[in-house]
Amino acid sequence: MQIQGKSYHTIWLKNDNPKVIQIIDQRQLPHRLVIENLKSVAQVARAIKDMHVRGAPLIGATAAYGMYLACLEAPDGFLFDDYIQNAATQLKNTRPTAINLAWAVDQQLELIQNVSSKEEKTKQALDLANTIKQDSIERCRMIGEHGLKIIEEIATKKNGEVVNILTHCNAGWLACVDYGTATAPIYLAHDKGIKVHVWVDETRPRNQGARITAFELLEHGIPHTVIPDNVGGHLMQHDMVDLCIVGTDRTTKTGDVANKVGTYLKALAAKDNDVPFYVALPSSTIDWSISDGVKEIPIEERGADEVKSIYGLHQNQIKKVLLTPKDSPATNFAFDVTPAHLVTGLITERGVCDASEEGIARLFSVKK
Amino acid sequence: MQIQGKSYHTIWLKNDNPKVIQIIDQRQLPHRLVIENLKSVAQVARAIKDMHVRGAPLIGATAAYGMYLACLEAPDGFLFDDYIQNAATQLKNTRPTAINLAWAVDQQLELIQNVSSKEEKTKQALDLANTIKQDSIERCRMIGEHGLKIIEEIATKKNGEVVNILTHCNAGWLACVDYGTATAPIYLAHDKGIKVHVWVDETRPRNQGARITAFELLEHGIPHTVIPDNVGGHLMQHDMVDLCIVGTDRTTKTGDVANKVGTYLKALAAKDNDVPFYVALPSSTIDWSISDGVKEIPIEERGADEVKSIYGLHQNQIKKVLLTPKDSPATNFAFDVTPAHLVTGLITERGVCDASEEGIARLFSVKK
Repeated sequence: MQIQGKSYHTIWLKNDNPKVIQIIDQRQLPHRLVIENLKSVAQVARAIKDMHVRGAPLIGATAAYGMYLACLEAPDGFLFDDYIQNAATQLKNTRPTAINLAWAVDQQLELIQNVSSKEEKTKQALDLANTIKQDSIERCRMIGEHGLKIIEEIATKKNGEVVNILTHCNAGWLACVDYGTATAPIYLAHDKGIKVHVWVDETRPRNQGARITAFELLEHGIPHTVIPDNVGGHLMQHDMVDLCIVGTDRTTKTGDVANKVGTYLKALAAKDNDVPFYVALPSSTIDWSISDGVKEIPIEERGADEVKSIYGLHQNQIKKVLLTPKDSPATNFAFDVTPAHLVTGLITERGVCDASEEGIARLFSVKK
Repeated sequence: MQIQGKSYHTIWLKNDNPKVIQIIDQRQLPHRLVIENLKSVAQVARAIKDMHVRGAPLIGATAAYGMYLACLEAPDGFLFDDYIQNAATQLKNTRPTAINLAWAVDQQLELIQNVSSKEEKTKQALDLANTIKQDSIERCRMIGEHGLKIIEEIATKKNGEVVNILTHCNAGWLACVDYGTATAPIYLAHDKGIKVHVWVDETRPRNQGARITAFELLEHGIPHTVIPDNVGGHLMQHDMVDLCIVGTDRTTKTGDVANKVGTYLKALAAKDNDVPFYVALPSSTIDWSISDGVKEIPIEERGADEVKSIYGLHQNQIKKVLLTPKDSPATNFAFDVTPAHLVTGLITERGVCDASEEGIARLFSVKK
């Protein structure tokens, strides 16, 4: 997608030096666009751990490139394998809950073990990292194609008037490699000339909407408006939302959806006002072992400081300010679960289906 | 209520000089407790306009004391009446939408016109200001008494375990003179020894919950936890909320409730999880001319800057920081309407009733 009129992915090989990985340091967004060079496994591990990159698909791709750098820097000979094993452990330990991270690292480990020379291992590790990256782009693009039809249908019903779409948090291209999940249909619709406007939930406490989704949309030229998380219900009551699209961090085989906290409240409002509520996901987020999301999906509790304080720009410097009384406690549940009956449909890389065991099984019958 | 172990109202006559009004400058909360002297009508008008005081009941009381100061400073003789009329206009123009403000000023005007000497006018204006203040305290106390029964009932059902109450925005004593509306039952329950804990919605964009409600509860010693506005639904799904109590800025005769934006989302979650959802109000907020809140109550739109930026404490100074991309637009609807069917009951100074035309008429049959 576009930043300052130029096409970007979230991760790429440096143009004049393929031994260096480049990323956008997302901690600085939206206030600064900082491109960062990653030249070692240690630097890759730090970038994941300290959230220079975030979003499960992007973390997976970054770790895959980290394993390529590990091959480059590992000593040739009998110490090579130990070095690679250590690098894998280091990368996996950065953010132990992200499934894509361990998956990408294990894929690389298996490949590297089955090839003979250091040179060949390094070459194949780079190929696999590139494949993981391309695969992520392609899945998001397919989600976009399938979701586009939903937007087109609404645009037709509205005789070409602007389609107003509400989204929560950042399930955008900056969480992936390109396109995003929830945003993919929006980008494709915009690029096709369909008039869209996005209501961007700021998404307290970490404000991924106000910071990252707004930045993405602004830079790509998509009309949007940032709103406090409290406002979506009012907008839906007054016919100012045609469609909600959000992402998901884990989806049960029955269609319950764990996404950034506050998603459930928007789904309730959508149901109450007959607004279609779609969830966009690559099938890798489906947890085939779980049937009851509210009861079975563990909800991460993060630090109180993220609620009590916030970062923002003051006189051109990023500063942290305290919002609450110093001694008031705060609680920070990062996700909530939206039961399937509130979800109009799931937009996957294989097509759109009902948020139900039957609906999901129809698209993904190869899975048990 | 208590601040730093001392009992306060939000407005009072200076102890050693009854020609000076004292208030708490609420712009500084929760970071600083600043008591401000108001010595002239001009100072009172500025305090209301610039929100040193806020909350409809408190604004009304402050304006009433402003009219008393006007009597004190007005020249004796034929210019007295002109001075008073000008003072009244000045006060009313500070915040034209607050009903209590115009009502208090008009009460004073009528009284002052019907009394002869400057001395007597001044004395009676002070008496009326004191009466308006006391009346506000008494109404809030009665709301507290009636709401207390609801909390007691839940405490009994829970065999004395902590009663968890969620509130939104600040309908606390700092918006009134004492007790508050939504908080009155909580203070009375706490003071009676019932174990309560309050989930405080931070209430973006102006964060009246995180700033003012949290401050009130902390200072009065009531256990509480600040939460992002996104979290309430998750808490209710997991049986962590026994009761919601919120305030209202305008109530239709049919029981629809216009309150701080985001209230509607919490009412939906309460309904979905069988959590009782009560609204506390003095009957002065009932608009007897309106039946359909969503269609008929106008919703104030405030400046985008309140969404894009926020104030907080940085290195002991209050600073404003930018949260969004500089060029992203934002929208700021200040209220939303919760339809009566989502409201379990209304807690008024006359008792608790159904949120319905019949329920309200039963308590307030003298009104047409």
